[in-house]
Amino acid sequence: MPSFYCPSIDKDSKTAIISGDEYHHLKNVLRKSPGEEILLNSGKGLLATGTIESIGKREVSVVIQSVTAIQQSSPRLALAFTLLRQKNDEWLVEKATELGVAELYPLQTHNSVRHYSSNTVTRFQQAAIRAIKQCDNPWLPVIHAVQSLPDAIDTLMQTCYKLYVASERKPETSLADYVIDNDTCIFIGPEGGFTAEEFSLLQVKQIAEISLCPLILRAETAAIAAAAQVQLLRSYRNKGKISGTK
Amino acid sequence: MPSFYCPSIDKDSKTAIISGDEYHHLKNVLRKSPGEEILLNSGKGLLATGTIESIGKREVSVVIQSVTAIQQSSPRLALAFTLLRQKNDEWLVEKATELGVAELYPLQTHNSVRHYSSNTVTRFQQAAIRAIKQCDNPWLPVIHAVQSLPDAIDTLMQTCYKLYVASERKPETSLADYVIDNDTCIFIGPEGGFTAEEFSLLQVKQIAEISLCPLILRAETAAIAAAAQVQLLRSYRNKGKISGTK
Repeated sequence: MPSFYCPSIDKDSKTAIISGDEYHHLKNVLRKSPGEEILLNSGKGLLATGTIESIGKREVSVVIQSVTAIQQSSPRLALAFTLLRQKNDEWLVEKATELGVAELYPLQTHNSVRHYSSNTVTRFQQAAIRAIKQCDNPWLPVIHAVQSLPDAIDTLMQTCYKLYVASERKPETSLADYVIDNDTCIFIGPEGGFTAEEFSLLQVKQIAEISLCPLILRAETAAIAAAAQVQLLRSYRNKGKISGTK
Repeated sequence: MPSFYCPSIDKDSKTAIISGDEYHHLKNVLRKSPGEEILLNSGKGLLATGTIESIGKREVSVVIQSVTAIQQSSPRLALAFTLLRQKNDEWLVEKATELGVAELYPLQTHNSVRHYSSNTVTRFQQAAIRAIKQCDNPWLPVIHAVQSLPDAIDTLMQTCYKLYVASERKPETSLADYVIDNDTCIFIGPEGGFTAEEFSLLQVKQIAEISLCPLILRAETAAIAAAAQVQLLRSYRNKGKISGTK
């Protein structure tokens, strides 16, 4: 069942308070009543079942019955994606969260349509919260501040992520050429693609180009395809069925 | 570059006429002029380059320079998906087309939100045309009439498709358990899932249940994830890297 986002719960919590947007959602949208059972989602790996004790003017008290800790999928996947028009980037965040992406690095690149505002990361966080609630994914992805491509590459080179870039320039190379045993981050270009200069920079940093599909994909489709393909790779790896990769 | 849909061209065409919606798009939206080079897309495997000869009151004449035939990806993928709310099904058709899905079977199931109208298939066809134009995919998917689940199963059992159903009930089974050497059709349930009765029917017909992701996916996300994963499977297969599958 859909869960309520409640970041304050920990594994020993006996009670919880729901306030703000979640209070509104519970009381006015879903019209829950005292005594009803609900699911709480910490966004940090915990799902808890609880019973509504009372609904006040600004908050709801919940008595917690049980808390379950759920491990994050491994290896972890991050996406570095550019800001897109018509809320396609918000949609990308929502779908990537459903598919268990662990970290999101929004990028401002030469061909990005939208310039970011102070509101951009909040907007993405709200989209991610909607998705974890809907899909009972107890891991809210970490959403980083918007960065330029060179800054994001520098940041990501300091992490344990192995870096790839989705590209139409190497149709014969796919994720099937690599064992995804490391935490993996895939760069996704904007509509119109990365510029030649941006590709040079990615090349200098030895970021491997992979094709997700022989056809040209819109930016948001590429991001979701990447996340879905990494899920399948994890399944292959867990079953010991990948052989002969780089 | 984005192409114009022109189903009348064949591999020997020397000229073409663009009319209707495509005429409007070329003349009034993109404001093309005589002498400009454009790309034409037959939707049946042909991409042609041509030059605009003249722009009339209702149609555009194009002189064709070259026609390229592009093979459809093999094995073919079909999706049998339920009608969804808020145009999510239209969006599903668009993204599935980008990812090279060959056939789409819209379903009316117990938990489908939207009832279909005479306009439904036209709406899907328009979404698919938008996608092939944007993505230079010269294969317009075949979009079938809306059917009930039992009728769609019967129809699909007569084809050469090997049938699967995306399910949360078998998290340990994925496409990695199968060699996708046959044309493949994946059933995608509605929000709220297939009912127990519908699952029984799928089981009786020996349609294999597979999980696309350990998390719960929205219906439209599941459809795109399935298409993306089949693309990766094709890549594995082409590279001879799949071993030990059923």
